[in-house]
Amino acid sequence: MSVSLCKSVLITGSSRGIGLQLVKELAKSSNRPPTIIATARNPTSSTDLQELSKTYPGVHIVTLDVESQQSISSALEEVQSIVGNNGLNCLINNAAIGFSMDINAITPEAMMKTFQVNSVTPLFVTKAFLPLLQTAAAQSTGMGIHRAAVINISSILGSITCNWGEAANLKSYAYRTSKAALNMVTRCLAADLGSDGILCMSLHPGWVKTDMGGPQAPLTVEESVSGMLSVLSHLTDKDHGGFKDYRGDNLPW
Amino acid sequence: MSVSLCKSVLITGSSRGIGLQLVKELAKSSNRPPTIIATARNPTSSTDLQELSKTYPGVHIVTLDVESQQSISSALEEVQSIVGNNGLNCLINNAAIGFSMDINAITPEAMMKTFQVNSVTPLFVTKAFLPLLQTAAAQSTGMGIHRAAVINISSILGSITCNWGEAANLKSYAYRTSKAALNMVTRCLAADLGSDGILCMSLHPGWVKTDMGGPQAPLTVEESVSGMLSVLSHLTDKDHGGFKDYRGDNLPW
Repeated sequence: MSVSLCKSVLITGSSRGIGLQLVKELAKSSNRPPTIIATARNPTSSTDLQELSKTYPGVHIVTLDVESQQSISSALEEVQSIVGNNGLNCLINNAAIGFSMDINAITPEAMMKTFQVNSVTPLFVTKAFLPLLQTAAAQSTGMGIHRAAVINISSILGSITCNWGEAANLKSYAYRTSKAALNMVTRCLAADLGSDGILCMSLHPGWVKTDMGGPQAPLTVEESVSGMLSVLSHLTDKDHGGFKDYRGDNLPW
Repeated sequence: MSVSLCKSVLITGSSRGIGLQLVKELAKSSNRPPTIIATARNPTSSTDLQELSKTYPGVHIVTLDVESQQSISSALEEVQSIVGNNGLNCLINNAAIGFSMDINAITPEAMMKTFQVNSVTPLFVTKAFLPLLQTAAAQSTGMGIHRAAVINISSILGSITCNWGEAANLKSYAYRTSKAALNMVTRCLAADLGSDGILCMSLHPGWVKTDMGGPQAPLTVEESVSGMLSVLSHLTDKDHGGFKDYRGDNLPW
């Protein structure tokens, strides 16, 4: 697929699952971004990621624990030196955790931990990398990943509208509330960063066969990521502040 | 106004503001609920609340710090002994905090604290009082506060849909995300408790002149609470899982 005119992408949580596949697919694409920054809390533990960076010279591995402000600061410095004066075109906030806990099993601790990782850290990673996104945005016009974009990997499980009827049978208080909160973060960021030319959106990857999605999921990680990258490559100002799935369909909040 | 057929109401955060006014208005109504349970973290500090309980014998003051599981357990025991075999008809989760922090001022700590109080505690207060709500629900039919209801005091600021254009000028990452998350809690609870006959909804009080709303707010607390109690008294199964404002208008998620 074409991910045209995008010079640099940074992905959080890329040691496995959807994050790893995003790095892989971007690296293999015919007109790949020259700079692909794969971040993870503990990237040395992912042999897949190490292999990718050996095979494709544009793939840079940077340690980033999204829960640690100190780690975010160190990563920012490293990324700054990689992208230089070009800034960063596309930040993909993908790192997340998931608990399936119904009303009987849910605990305050599980709720708070999930808010921390899934709702709070994407905001503070974005705040940290904002100067690099602004640098890239200042060098282009229009809206899209060719200029600057913040992509929050959300979920249809975070759609309050969709949590009804049969779709409400999947019980997960912590995950659902954290992704609804993330969607509000997306919308707040969109309101704040639009005037800088930075596109912000929430993206639902579908229900994917990963460690988090489980083996019963209908989609392979290849199908999901291929769809998401096609969506990303076609983003325009119309998508700013929106919520789409991996097929490009709009989702209700 | 008529709050017909409701035997008991419990309100959290009732030492001041909207919570206090809810207690006051309910106590003064011509066909008031025989049992009005006003809870607060530190009720002795509210002379208004003390006065109300002296004037109206149906007003019971119970200490409840919504952030403490131990305090919730003690309050549950006390409330159980007040309502007895009738159970509890209406739980109003009103306790909340508010920070107006824009993208520059917001901190992870403010986000987490606001999630804790505004999104997590309403769920765990509801879980704790669920047996009393179920007891009440088993004694009646239909849906509404005459039977059993969980009312989460939310805000239009928690509407992701509405956070756009001019309405997005009020910047408050912590408050907005916490109320969006609360709306998801409402919807999860509605999916889970509907079959027990317990109505669950989110209610927006309007922008009210309180310590939280500030003096520039257009609504008096009397106008807001009078409207909310009218909405509550007319709830039916059609309102289950919904989001309304103090005038009874539906809000988008």
